[in-house]
Amino acid sequence: MTSLLHLDSSANTSGESVSRQLTASFADTWRDLHGSDGYRYRDLVADPVPPLDTAYCTLGRRLGQHGLVPPAEVAALLESPAEEQQWALTYPLVTELLAAETVLIGAPMYNYSVPASLKAWIDRVTFPGAYTDPDTGDSLLRETSVVVITPRGGTYGQGTPREAWDFHTPYLRTYLRGLGVSEENLCFVSAELTLSGLVPHLGHLQPLAARSLAEARVRVAALCGGGATERWPARGRTAAPSPSTTR
Amino acid sequence: MTSLLHLDSSANTSGESVSRQLTASFADTWRDLHGSDGYRYRDLVADPVPPLDTAYCTLGRRLGQHGLVPPAEVAALLESPAEEQQWALTYPLVTELLAAETVLIGAPMYNYSVPASLKAWIDRVTFPGAYTDPDTGDSLLRETSVVVITPRGGTYGQGTPREAWDFHTPYLRTYLRGLGVSEENLCFVSAELTLSGLVPHLGHLQPLAARSLAEARVRVAALCGGGATERWPARGRTAAPSPSTTR
Repeated sequence: MTSLLHLDSSANTSGESVSRQLTASFADTWRDLHGSDGYRYRDLVADPVPPLDTAYCTLGRRLGQHGLVPPAEVAALLESPAEEQQWALTYPLVTELLAAETVLIGAPMYNYSVPASLKAWIDRVTFPGAYTDPDTGDSLLRETSVVVITPRGGTYGQGTPREAWDFHTPYLRTYLRGLGVSEENLCFVSAELTLSGLVPHLGHLQPLAARSLAEARVRVAALCGGGATERWPARGRTAAPSPSTTR
Repeated sequence: MTSLLHLDSSANTSGESVSRQLTASFADTWRDLHGSDGYRYRDLVADPVPPLDTAYCTLGRRLGQHGLVPPAEVAALLESPAEEQQWALTYPLVTELLAAETVLIGAPMYNYSVPASLKAWIDRVTFPGAYTDPDTGDSLLRETSVVVITPRGGTYGQGTPREAWDFHTPYLRTYLRGLGVSEENLCFVSAELTLSGLVPHLGHLQPLAARSLAEARVRVAALCGGGATERWPARGRTAAPSPSTTR
């Protein structure tokens, strides 16, 4: 069965959040096409991932010394109630990620990087050895498709004055590639200048912001198969770059 | 009165945390020299900064439209109990940062970036207009000294294969410079390869790790005035770079 894991991390749970609007649009289209049985939603703000603690670190460090331990075998290696508690908080997130055919991440830029709510998920779900086939050494996520929706208040594209301030899209690409997600299964959809309607000195850029958002909406619809031009997963294909797209 | 704000963000609150060892060493020396009255400690793991919510975003967006609002004047502009609650969680962090002559940040690398616990502090404390003098437009943090302790499990220095995976030190430099901290008042002390004693394939690098940690200890002592070679604040001076140092 095809499956979608949908994560949102914007602190703004009202209708104003651009990342939530765009992920909801993708998810709506996906459910229209595939039904709701394979759909899993995790709101990292309404239901925050609990912070790591010493027991999590102790467990991760000890297992790191064992080489690659498959997640299903970790329970047998727990040594304290504190470790059991930490693993009980972690294992469902790991299995949920491993089970997803497509992962949809709403990741607005906060202070030039990802929101703390998303980083909390990253820090917990990235458990040593969890995504590596112990027999082959290959990543278990190499067939997983990931769509990341990355609205940002300003503009950080190639050649802009703030390009070097972008620790958001390049970070998520590096992190996800590091987990073993392949480049052709990884897609970023940005909407830039989302603060142009609010911050006075960006006001003159509102037409650019509107165009960027419109392009993002078209891409989201197309990626999910609702449009005609682009389908997701787009294995082995690379879409043409556009001002609001980084692949 | 001279003052130090000490932040720790390692999830490991046991004695094993290298960042906590190094910040504690700095703080101990500082208190020996200056006494405890100006010392303020915030453990971002034992006492996590609460996640942002919609009211925080609504307040920040509305104030952004007002231009620069000094923190002391925000209370008069709050429009709901939810905004009052969010500001009550934020204002003490803002004033604490503004009051500190020196800020000491324990910031281990987690998944190529800062820990979620530190990002939660960054996301909340970075309130629009809070660090800008409304009369001059200058940063109120331009005289603030910041020492960042940045242990990492691997090695990410210039010329290493993983240099491009470092969204940690360059990120914190960009963020802090963006707040208005001046380059000469900003100091990073790294200790690399902290996982070399745990991860089998890094085992042969343990001598390098030990040297990096020893150099970090010397630098921390010197920066705080406990050693003879380097004092902090080091306004207008730039220390010679070393393998464990990025300035």
